[in-house]
Amino acid sequence: MADAAGSRLLIIGGAERRGTTILARFVELAGGPDAHIVVIAAASAVPGELEADYAAAFTGLGAGTVRALRLTTREDAGQPSALAALEQATAVFFTGGDQYRITTLLGGTPVDSLLQTLVADGRLVLAGTSAGAAMMSGTMILGGNAPGVTTTSVRTGPGLEFLPGVLIDMHFAERGRLNRLLSAVAMYPHEVGVGIDEDTAILARQGAFQVLGSGSVTVVDAGAASDIRVPADGPIAIAGARIHVLPAGYTFHLKDREWGRAA
Amino acid sequence: MADAAGSRLLIIGGAERRGTTILARFVELAGGPDAHIVVIAAASAVPGELEADYAAAFTGLGAGTVRALRLTTREDAGQPSALAALEQATAVFFTGGDQYRITTLLGGTPVDSLLQTLVADGRLVLAGTSAGAAMMSGTMILGGNAPGVTTTSVRTGPGLEFLPGVLIDMHFAERGRLNRLLSAVAMYPHEVGVGIDEDTAILARQGAFQVLGSGSVTVVDAGAASDIRVPADGPIAIAGARIHVLPAGYTFHLKDREWGRAA
Repeated sequence: MADAAGSRLLIIGGAERRGTTILARFVELAGGPDAHIVVIAAASAVPGELEADYAAAFTGLGAGTVRALRLTTREDAGQPSALAALEQATAVFFTGGDQYRITTLLGGTPVDSLLQTLVADGRLVLAGTSAGAAMMSGTMILGGNAPGVTTTSVRTGPGLEFLPGVLIDMHFAERGRLNRLLSAVAMYPHEVGVGIDEDTAILARQGAFQVLGSGSVTVVDAGAASDIRVPADGPIAIAGARIHVLPAGYTFHLKDREWGRAA
Repeated sequence: MADAAGSRLLIIGGAERRGTTILARFVELAGGPDAHIVVIAAASAVPGELEADYAAAFTGLGAGTVRALRLTTREDAGQPSALAALEQATAVFFTGGDQYRITTLLGGTPVDSLLQTLVADGRLVLAGTSAGAAMMSGTMILGGNAPGVTTTSVRTGPGLEFLPGVLIDMHFAERGRLNRLLSAVAMYPHEVGVGIDEDTAILARQGAFQVLGSGSVTVVDAGAASDIRVPADGPIAIAGARIHVLPAGYTFHLKDREWGRAA
């Protein structure tokens, strides 16, 4: 579990445009010409394509060094060469794919442990898009697309907790996912629901995040609700929750669950 | 504009099951064996089918008398026979179809005026499903399905205002319409956004409504927001709005915008 004062997390809702805002910011945070970026496509069944795609994008944006770290087994995630690659990195980027490919391959491995330490110590910037974003949450949303707000509208599992206390969903507006985010925060209102649109990201630092990109971040705070009822069967009730739809220029403080505007 | 103390409005999100909860309640409110129900399928290009469908449903639920009032021109909506049919009715039911077929055919006609009076005086129960529900709002949502919360994500127009101060959307969870409801209430936060799921309804009386049926009613109160910014282009910001997801058993008071539970 990271989220120490020094951690810098860039969490992207998927389908970010190449060569512009969000990825440009990532390269800048990574150090620009001094960047050593490691791309991990462990979420994907076709990692080669994504590795090449992002390497081209980051190089085009002026990143000094970009390399792929191919992890296909849990054994790979314990190799000294993998750990050495991370030690040299100024930034790590997780691509999209399937979020539990990431947790299954990396959860509890030496690569996972080292990443937690490097992120918490502020020694690298951790970024991820789509599945690579979801896995950063305390709780990740795995699936569920049934209409309505019910216990069966969402499936969740423990994320790698780089950003604890947050329940992240992605491709949010594009796939109409409010139902499942509401379902999840009704069951777990101690976590803040954060739905990130495509080509949109949050940059989380020091207990707050700011919004970047072309879409919005929808924050659902069911902790504010005065009544929540979750029947085993049938629709969930949530009365008095708060919702924020925040585009670029807005910030959100996770501890006091309050929005703000970037300076 | 109705919504006087005596008005009773049953506003259904579409696709209500025949022969059960919502329609049974409607027949009961209409007077059961003493009911005189008038079905108006003006929203539909195929009114005959819907008239027969609902006549069978209401009769099956024990309604005394059911008749269709076929209105295909504005002239029809001024005929003495149409007005006489409404004068005798204990309830009127508007079917689904296209909401602006209803306003185009009836808006400002003698049928519209008489309905407003009869509803306000509590002399009949007015019900509508889907398009027949949308037209009851102060502002009706006409369309818009673009992802994201933007000025172009929603098209609105004035409803017939049987329930003023409310912005109704229907087929809500099933068609993932929160984006467009949020877009609308960001622009018009003086109106309360009410998204009604399929097979779900609100029964509005005396400034409050109660939820009926198998789904939920999502209430978005952007009046509570401390910051709203609506750019001509790009994503809308809404900070600090309230959201309620209310299944059967819950009520909502429109004036003070507060939820409650049915006694």
